Amino acid sequence: MDTLTFPPKETPFLTPYLPTPKQDDENPFTTLTFATSLDSSLSLSPGTRTVLSGPQSKAMTHYLRSRHAAILIGVGTAVADDPGLNCRIQGVGGYGGEGLQGQPRPIVLDPSARWEFDEGSKILVLAREGRGRAPFIVTGSNVSVLEEKRGLLERCGGKFITLDVDVEEGRRGFDWGDLLRCLKREGLESVMIEGGGSVINSLLEPGFQHLVDSVIVTIAPTWLGQGGVAVSPKRRFDESGSAIAASRLRDVKWHPFGEDVVLCGRMGQ
Amino acid sequence: MDTLTFPPKETPFLTPYLPTPKQDDENPFTTLTFATSLDSSLSLSPGTRTVLSGPQSKAMTHYLRSRHAAILIGVGTAVADDPGLNCRIQGVGGYGGEGLQGQPRPIVLDPSARWEFDEGSKILVLAREGRGRAPFIVTGSNVSVLEEKRGLLERCGGKFITLDVDVEEGRRGFDWGDLLRCLKREGLESVMIEGGGSVINSLLEPGFQHLVDSVIVTIAPTWLGQGGVAVSPKRRFDESGSAIAASRLRDVKWHPFGEDVVLCGRMGQ
Repeated sequence: MDTLTFPPKETPFLTPYLPTPKQDDENPFTTLTFATSLDSSLSLSPGTRTVLSGPQSKAMTHYLRSRHAAILIGVGTAVADDPGLNCRIQGVGGYGGEGLQGQPRPIVLDPSARWEFDEGSKILVLAREGRGRAPFIVTGSNVSVLEEKRGLLERCGGKFITLDVDVEEGRRGFDWGDLLRCLKREGLESVMIEGGGSVINSLLEPGFQHLVDSVIVTIAPTWLGQGGVAVSPKRRFDESGSAIAASRLRDVKWHPFGEDVVLCGRMGQ
Repeated sequence: MDTLTFPPKETPFLTPYLPTPKQDDENPFTTLTFATSLDSSLSLSPGTRTVLSGPQSKAMTHYLRSRHAAILIGVGTAVADDPGLNCRIQGVGGYGGEGLQGQPRPIVLDPSARWEFDEGSKILVLAREGRGRAPFIVTGSNVSVLEEKRGLLERCGGKFITLDVDVEEGRRGFDWGDLLRCLKREGLESVMIEGGGSVINSLLEPGFQHLVDSVIVTIAPTWLGQGGVAVSPKRRFDESGSAIAASRLRDVKWHPFGEDVVLCGRMGQ
């Protein structure tokens, strides 16, 4: 079995950045996490999966999944990667543990309901095998979904959730505030946002970054080169119209980790 | 006085990456060093100087300068920044030490001789004050320089060096092999290449990166945002035409340094 272990001696540096209860808050605890190259690329090109970080970083990602109620990706990643989106850490449900305890709920943002999953999609196979939860797929409230797709998803324990779509600068997407409140109402107390590029860049925009509680970024000592899928938020400007840094992390901790480094921090301001 | 100190306890992590003698080699020992944001930007926009890294990183840069015979920048940086390009570490010449010992020779790459320096340019002021060396300016061999400029430079102890210019894909520049051999012939045993963006990106190209011995990159926990001056080399492709990583570092060491991290490594392959 493809079980992973993340030794307890490795966890202390992450502890201050893990979800804490936000009982009286309408938002869940939100962690943004991803791995990039030195030139801030997630992958060599859109739709390509590029292995950047080493095995230790992979185990860390699964450990972090076990500490969140939900993990979230955009539809582009779902279509490109056919991801499992479960947690394979030794001791969680399906990997030595009871039921589905420790398994996060996958959330897929799919405003136009274009993800053509089927019975063989990895995420549904894992759900049927009891090794992960079936996804909640968030679609635009103006979009209809085939009954066949809905039935397939619901039989595995997942569901469609509808939410109004914002159209801004020609880009269709959800308002992050609306979305996170919606997940909290679903009982999800913490969300780990994993990618891909457009999800990460939109969450890093000035209007949304205050919604992020923790940031955990792994950097690999590689330059992927021009043309990759880059993480770089939109530019910010001060009152006089001069460009200023889009955002700076605070409470920063760098943790060398094999050949990679892990950066933990909180959104500045 | 603006003297900097870099405590001896901070130097061991750098030691394996410092210049070593390359006696029978036609090339000098070459170090590539720069500071970027998380989104791999050197500055907010071309011609802007953006303070990214903290005071410790600044002291480290000056310590590294003291360990190299020459420091090299492109003309764009010379024009934009009016840089001093000297070393201000306690104990080097002009900062408590004898003569100009420990002061690196500034090299400015200026293929079309467009840098309009004058008596007030910081680099020449420092040279006249005995706090740094005057620059060697490398120009294209097809370009003529006004006698007035030549006289000014030579009176401060600098000179113009001419070298053939390559024109490739519409870009005019020197061949890095030619240039480094030329510096070695000038008696410069080690060169620290500091920027800016076009110099760094061209040195990271597949055809040139083997000329680099050490890489020392400081990363600050900031996203500058889209539109910055980014470090990202040209894409590489394998034999089948698929994109592959432009380059990967080996012998990697990450050193947390205040809010920043310093990455040391050697060029892969």
